[in-house]
Amino acid sequence: MSERGRAMRAAVARPPYDIMRAAHAELHVRDLAVARDFYVEQLGMIVAAETADALYLRGWEERLHHSLVLRAAAEAAAAHLAFRVREEADLERLADAFTARGVESRWVEDELGQGPGLRVQDPAGFPLEFFHAMEPAESQLRRFDLQRGAPVLRFDHFNLHVTDVETVAADWFRHGFRCSEYIETDASPGRLTGAWLLRKPTVHDVGLTLGRGPRLHHLGFWVAEPMGVLRACDQLAASGHVACIERGPGRHGVSNAFFVYLRDPDGHRIELYSCDYYTGDPDHEPLRWSASDPRCRSFWGTRAPDEWYEESSILLDLDGSPVELHDAPADERSEIMA
Amino acid sequence: MSERGRAMRAAVARPPYDIMRAAHAELHVRDLAVARDFYVEQLGMIVAAETADALYLRGWEERLHHSLVLRAAAEAAAAHLAFRVREEADLERLADAFTARGVESRWVEDELGQGPGLRVQDPAGFPLEFFHAMEPAESQLRRFDLQRGAPVLRFDHFNLHVTDVETVAADWFRHGFRCSEYIETDASPGRLTGAWLLRKPTVHDVGLTLGRGPRLHHLGFWVAEPMGVLRACDQLAASGHVACIERGPGRHGVSNAFFVYLRDPDGHRIELYSCDYYTGDPDHEPLRWSASDPRCRSFWGTRAPDEWYEESSILLDLDGSPVELHDAPADERSEIMA
Amino acid sequence: MSERGRAMRAAVARPPYDIMRAAHAELHVRDLAVARDFYVEQLGMIVAAETADALYLRGWEERLHHSLVLRAAAEAAAAHLAFRVREEADLERLADAFTARGVESRWVEDELGQGPGLRVQDPAGFPLEFFHAMEPAESQLRRFDLQRGAPVLRFDHFNLHVTDVETVAADWFRHGFRCSEYIETDASPGRLTGAWLLRKPTVHDVGLTLGRGPRLHHLGFWVAEPMGVLRACDQLAASGHVACIERGPGRHGVSNAFFVYLRDPDGHRIELYSCDYYTGDPDHEPLRWSASDPRCRSFWGTRAPDEWYEESSILLDLDGSPVELHDAPADERSEIMA
Amino acid sequence: MSERGRAMRAAVARPPYDIMRAAHAELHVRDLAVARDFYVEQLGMIVAAETADALYLRGWEERLHHSLVLRAAAEAAAAHLAFRVREEADLERLADAFTARGVESRWVEDELGQGPGLRVQDPAGFPLEFFHAMEPAESQLRRFDLQRGAPVLRFDHFNLHVTDVETVAADWFRHGFRCSEYIETDASPGRLTGAWLLRKPTVHDVGLTLGRGPRLHHLGFWVAEPMGVLRACDQLAASGHVACIERGPGRHGVSNAFFVYLRDPDGHRIELYSCDYYTGDPDHEPLRWSASDPRCRSFWGTRAPDEWYEESSILLDLDGSPVELHDAPADERSEIMA
Repeated sequence: MSERGRAMRAAVARPPYDIMRAAHAELHVRDLAVARDFYVEQLGMIVAAETADALYLRGWEERLHHSLVLRAAAEAAAAHLAFRVREEADLERLADAFTARGVESRWVEDELGQGPGLRVQDPAGFPLEFFHAMEPAESQLRRFDLQRGAPVLRFDHFNLHVTDVETVAADWFRHGFRCSEYIETDASPGRLTGAWLLRKPTVHDVGLTLGRGPRLHHLGFWVAEPMGVLRACDQLAASGHVACIERGPGRHGVSNAFFVYLRDPDGHRIELYSCDYYTGDPDHEPLRWSASDPRCRSFWGTRAPDEWYEESSILLDLDGSPVELHDAPADERSEIMA
Repeated sequence: MSERGRAMRAAVARPPYDIMRAAHAELHVRDLAVARDFYVEQLGMIVAAETADALYLRGWEERLHHSLVLRAAAEAAAAHLAFRVREEADLERLADAFTARGVESRWVEDELGQGPGLRVQDPAGFPLEFFHAMEPAESQLRRFDLQRGAPVLRFDHFNLHVTDVETVAADWFRHGFRCSEYIETDASPGRLTGAWLLRKPTVHDVGLTLGRGPRLHHLGFWVAEPMGVLRACDQLAASGHVACIERGPGRHGVSNAFFVYLRDPDGHRIELYSCDYYTGDPDHEPLRWSASDPRCRSFWGTRAPDEWYEESSILLDLDGSPVELHDAPADERSEIMA
Repeated sequence: MSERGRAMRAAVARPPYDIMRAAHAELHVRDLAVARDFYVEQLGMIVAAETADALYLRGWEERLHHSLVLRAAAEAAAAHLAFRVREEADLERLADAFTARGVESRWVEDELGQGPGLRVQDPAGFPLEFFHAMEPAESQLRRFDLQRGAPVLRFDHFNLHVTDVETVAADWFRHGFRCSEYIETDASPGRLTGAWLLRKPTVHDVGLTLGRGPRLHHLGFWVAEPMGVLRACDQLAASGHVACIERGPGRHGVSNAFFVYLRDPDGHRIELYSCDYYTGDPDHEPLRWSASDPRCRSFWGTRAPDEWYEESSILLDLDGSPVELHDAPADERSEIMA
Repeated sequence: MSERGRAMRAAVARPPYDIMRAAHAELHVRDLAVARDFYVEQLGMIVAAETADALYLRGWEERLHHSLVLRAAAEAAAAHLAFRVREEADLERLADAFTARGVESRWVEDELGQGPGLRVQDPAGFPLEFFHAMEPAESQLRRFDLQRGAPVLRFDHFNLHVTDVETVAADWFRHGFRCSEYIETDASPGRLTGAWLLRKPTVHDVGLTLGRGPRLHHLGFWVAEPMGVLRACDQLAASGHVACIERGPGRHGVSNAFFVYLRDPDGHRIELYSCDYYTGDPDHEPLRWSASDPRCRSFWGTRAPDEWYEESSILLDLDGSPVELHDAPADERSEIMA
């Protein structure tokens, strides 16, 4: 194992709370009807609830009320990113831990379909929510007769645009996240241009990508198999939505997953993602990729479009104001093209 | 090449007419609404036209009006099996040829969506139709957003239960059909238990299976890829139609195709079929299978249920009366189990 | 949630040790060269080590030395079934717990490629091993150029033939296992004919099947996608191993996985298994299937061959003697056919 | 049907000879060992014969001796493109027809594994060969245990870079080729930027692409299903050949096929191609695409790299000298980007 890998593993803390997994996000969209068409008619997600200004969605496998909230707003933005904790008491433990670190937290009690949420703007600037209770839902995993598109089975991960991967990763290690893979420049010492961090035993719950930030790079949703990713592309192109296909389909080197990136009508990026691997053993060794290896993001070497590196969703802080952005010293492109 | 293969190739005639391919079938069904649910809602076929007593369907790739007619009747039966000829004048040439052989033929002028049809009851007892003209239709091959089920792309072949494969095959050779594959017992001389005969350059337009006959064993419809066959099974099971899945899915040894056999609500057998191979070169050599090889029908060795060997659709003659049945001396099962 | 589901969830203990997952098995085989051909040449598994009387294998994703041991012996049998614990100290805690329950345990110190193992014959008669330390191995997950067959990626689960599912399940609940799905007769009260129990967040680490026992019904290995299962079948049939394909391929109702069952040259049953779902949330509700639903084992309704219900691998006790067998009051077949 | 479509159909002649299909190509390569590694080790093609300066290859389905000849030479080039005719006598008929049109033809008698070939440099500058006789080979279609890569099943088509699609297409119509699809600019009158021409009933035997020419744009080989295309990419990337993947994988709008383009070590372009459709009916209507539709080449809208439009294999004339090149007035890119 590399020195970097050893250091990252040593940094993983055992906090008194248990963040189980990335669970849902709230996105602001400018036109709810247009967003509904994309997520419900085109991607085929299940409508869990609908209010005057919001739409609550989930995938076909999921057993909790929702994994995506779309809320009508004047500007597109990522309003909060939510993680599920193992038990209700973990929320108080988290609140205490944030207080001890001087991070303000707030309780949110009135979210549709779920119990209390603890909100913070984390040191990297991301609006996070932690919750445990949510209304159960019956899984529709075997309703192949009703499913459309890929279909989208469940929420999988957040990917975050950050200006300093090392620092942000260190913060997630404090929450007990481990690293499965990372991309590093070949300089000495190397700089991280990407890191994949997990609590549930898949490749990641949180991915970090070096770039202008803090911003939400994409939300990842799980699809059962590569053919589902292809089917979603076929369907989107056939229905006149070819412009929403941004990158792929293809195989990632990092994660080994088969993927496609889409852009929703507000520019939020959605990844359909399948076929990663098991990471549950605690001594799972972080895998290093050189930032100059063309296969690390696209195993087949296909160059991503520039907007994939440059564009992301802006974030809102706890008061609903946009989070200030900063340029990163570089992004992955320079290394691949070097 | 085996002696049998040589003999079969030598028997292929060059008649003055050109039968291009198997094209459509008319099935009698006892309840049109129930049949509609199966073919349209469950299999997802396109409705080309609907009358008081009949439904005209086609697959998503097809460019002619219909490839399947379902007609309400008191008893389930196969009313006619239709082949398309290259040009209108081929019909007169066929009529002359049948007359010369003492086979009565009749013209049918009033079929919905198509031009004149020439009908005969062939020497083996099958109600055949030959036609050229049919209303064109726009292919929906790329409408992945509308397609359901596998989807069913196009009609591919007829499979016929016959009591004497050698004799019936010889009759098709006279029409210019070639043989791609056959199953033969290991006795000396061997007896054919199956033969696959073609005009279009795929494995077959007409398959012959030894058994009680003459009956229609199944209609084969083309599916783009194996995953489509699996998807159709998933959808049928999810919607409560598990009982209609009779055999498979699996790979055929003969034809190398990936398949599943379904039974419609009237017991007519439908095969979803994909991935066979090119047979267009005229010196394509017939491939022999031993009837004792468990892989010839199911490449993975799975035993077919007895009803697959025993049950088939009865035929109607030109006057609409059921065609008399005869037992075959044997079927494939005895050899496989020997 | 059903009463049965609630009761099963309430029965899940929080023992002082952490059994992470099912990890490997040792099978006795009568001819090591013949077994090697099957597992290495046909299934394409990686050879981790080879000694005079044993072969150590793993899948292409795996990062520990081995997940299957084949040992030459006079009679085919399952010698032990191994689980990985989170840390070395868990082994002492397990030893104490077994002692407290009056179950004898033994330490095994000399296993190739791994650290100390704690062995017990559990109350149900199964020869279990618990271990933590094992030599690391580099994952070959992305070596698509070297992979053969499905390919087999990693060990997934054990399935056990037991004469009383309720009692054996209760014992696993004591070890902290949860239930994801179960099959129950429609009688009142219902009897369990199958149960799927997990520690890692997939459908199962241990499956229980009602039948003559205690025996090992099968070992399940993970495959990346359904097409891999089909490819493995094609390859086995092409190389003359069609007889080893026992059941499937098909989709399970229980687990939703795409599968095929194979029999190795000694009759040990291997399942190639892909596409189940996430079960990591602790409030995941057990899913009930009626034993009379033909879709519970085969979602497409295909009847399993009798040997699948009747045949299993015998077990060895800690001294290497065969474990005594008992008949079960029934098996799943009677209900499906009722 | 469009006026263009009607005109193209009216132009299809019924010559006295029958060109059945595109059959094989001879490519000059600078290092035979390097080329062998690519085609045999990486793509997994079957070696039919090997001489001091040439390698004869075929796909796993094919029943004739070879479908690709690689010959060692100082410069990479396409030496000839071969079509199979229905019978030996067609060759004399073709020779007469060329003579009548003032096109010089030559007989080649000494080609390994095949009978006499008739060579011409056609009016568009392409070195064509027509042949009938070739040594038979046993199909290896079902040898899944031996196949590697996609696998490559059979030769499918030539794609030609030409400076004037209309004129070259007209010449193929004279040979009895029909048009399945074409791309046309939206100007009035429109200019063709691509045309797909066929004899065998698939989408094409010969594709024409507007660009600097005459050159060979690519050779297309048939793969059984989309998953095979993905598997080939995975294998090439894993073995260190990521740079050979030029475009895709993806779905074509034109042809509906699933594809990937590779570049061999000499820069010759190979397409792995699957899932097009049936075109055998003589009244099959040519399908028009607007050159401004981003889906016509890439149904999912992915932009092709510039070299895909710009680079092609140079041709040799009958004396082995490079065929002179001319710029085209435009290529497809300008329209898509307009």
